[in-house]
Amino acid sequence: MRALYWDGHELGLNISYPSPFTGPKIADRESKNVGATGSRPTADENQTALVKVHLAGICSTDSQIFKGYMGFKGVPGHEFVGSVSEGPRDLLGQRVVGEINFACGKCDSCRRDLSRHCPNRAVMGILDADGAFAEYVSVPTANLHVVPDNVSDEEAVFTEPLAAAFEILTQTQLDPADDVLILGDGKLGNLCAQVLRLTGAKITALGKHAKKLALIKKAGVRTIQLNDWKPRLFDVVVEATGSASGLELALSAVRPRGRLILKSTIAGNHQVSLAPIVINEINVIGSRCGPFADALDALAAKQVWVTPLIEEIYSLNDGIAAVGHAARPGARKILIKPS
Amino acid sequence: MRALYWDGHELGLNISYPSPFTGPKIADRESKNVGATGSRPTADENQTALVKVHLAGICSTDSQIFKGYMGFKGVPGHEFVGSVSEGPRDLLGQRVVGEINFACGKCDSCRRDLSRHCPNRAVMGILDADGAFAEYVSVPTANLHVVPDNVSDEEAVFTEPLAAAFEILTQTQLDPADDVLILGDGKLGNLCAQVLRLTGAKITALGKHAKKLALIKKAGVRTIQLNDWKPRLFDVVVEATGSASGLELALSAVRPRGRLILKSTIAGNHQVSLAPIVINEINVIGSRCGPFADALDALAAKQVWVTPLIEEIYSLNDGIAAVGHAARPGARKILIKPS
Repeated sequence: MRALYWDGHELGLNISYPSPFTGPKIADRESKNVGATGSRPTADENQTALVKVHLAGICSTDSQIFKGYMGFKGVPGHEFVGSVSEGPRDLLGQRVVGEINFACGKCDSCRRDLSRHCPNRAVMGILDADGAFAEYVSVPTANLHVVPDNVSDEEAVFTEPLAAAFEILTQTQLDPADDVLILGDGKLGNLCAQVLRLTGAKITALGKHAKKLALIKKAGVRTIQLNDWKPRLFDVVVEATGSASGLELALSAVRPRGRLILKSTIAGNHQVSLAPIVINEINVIGSRCGPFADALDALAAKQVWVTPLIEEIYSLNDGIAAVGHAARPGARKILIKPS
Repeated sequence: MRALYWDGHELGLNISYPSPFTGPKIADRESKNVGATGSRPTADENQTALVKVHLAGICSTDSQIFKGYMGFKGVPGHEFVGSVSEGPRDLLGQRVVGEINFACGKCDSCRRDLSRHCPNRAVMGILDADGAFAEYVSVPTANLHVVPDNVSDEEAVFTEPLAAAFEILTQTQLDPADDVLILGDGKLGNLCAQVLRLTGAKITALGKHAKKLALIKKAGVRTIQLNDWKPRLFDVVVEATGSASGLELALSAVRPRGRLILKSTIAGNHQVSLAPIVINEINVIGSRCGPFADALDALAAKQVWVTPLIEEIYSLNDGIAAVGHAARPGARKILIKPS
């Protein structure tokens, strides 16, 4: 099959990449990736489905992988929507999205219902498991969620990052009295703003880019451009810039005893003074992958507005150009359409 | 009166330091330090008592002040026990300890019952208010707590750092199922270990110094010396070393979705990778000053064991030597006895 392949140094289009069900790499993965994300292991725990990829999204994490993050080698891509072409009868032909953490189902974390943190996990397109920048991707059936009929492929491909935004609400409660600042006007900042708005809290998005802020504003969120920023304190600040300067600004904008949600991994070490966290008794909450069911529900209910985030759709043959486009500063979501 | 005085460069014994009730510096302070810590402003909000200092404790924060922390100039010292020599009739002669944050009583933080975070606050011996390394110290009456009769001066002088340990329990809940690691065998680590032990949680203290660990062990807490440390994960980790390497170790010892309590300010910026906070969805809780009432209750009930932490008691005339002694690595609590 055709797939984009990252060998640790270069990204190439590999026309003869082993089919997910026959290649030796996949056989390894099948024995490793058992269990369910967000659920107890079931009789199907070892079952894997082959998914024909309709659309895959390029994420900032992918750009980081191409800089060496996680030391990953293989087919990248962890945001996708597709249809099941091989697997259990009840899933055949169904439109699906898939959770990206392939857990062992047996360890302490899995037993605590924290399988997204399973230390033995593989992560699709990021760690020990091939991803979705390919014609087909192999996914444990327990990780799959059927996409509601009224959610288009262009919407469903946002399920993974949208779930990451919903993760915040599984970790902390917001209410209408909360004054919330979202730092960053990129895709993640946009989705976080839209999701947190659903709680009734007062949301303000702060960013650098007028065009991106306009998108967030259209979704009903108050926006401020960085040039017009007058420092003040918020109950909750969400850091979604992925930059060290963003983190510094975020720390300075949280009120004493307030909450700082760290939504983006900032690769590498940074010179950060953590003294304000102690002096102001700030609660810093790291937040990563989230509940797919909540994201699909919100898409089905048309509570969030994701398709305006799409900048361009590339064919898989033009996948290398797509990745280059996604890495440009200011790019919105770039999608790859394998067929 | 006699007082130790820090002029920003040098610590001196100032025999003719202005009496707290007559000096111009104090007059400034009286107009600034109104209001109550941990309570709404009352009719007494402007009232100040003059406290004759029985004992004052030297804290790591003091050592940091002598390195330039907070740019403080004046009489240092914020841990003390004394007796009221001037002030309201019902307090005269009473043995007291005092909360160190002198709040304005009028701002948003004060109205939220967060007066310890009042942005207009002075802090005894740390920011815009003279402290307790002196014969007398002036304290808003609302900040004073009467010491129970069965608590000795040598015990009561630990109220402030003990309250800081109790602060953790106002911020997060521990139960007997929680596996807790305290990092650091110093005074703060010791007090945190003893306080958290009261919850029934499983407490392990990790430190470098056999003698200090022995003190913690005597208080009924399991201890491990750093040389014998085998990395494993804990539900809750308390960072009480005040060192960058301690922070790194702390981050590596928190289980996914676990809690990291930052109990010590690490002065300056440090190269720290915050990626584990996001990847493992760690909840980092900054924790500072705490409830004096809880600390006094625990001392009165003999639930904690503080006097073994005392290394030496110096007269005020030998205060400079006392400060030098307190700064030695491995020193336990050094006290100053002004009279």
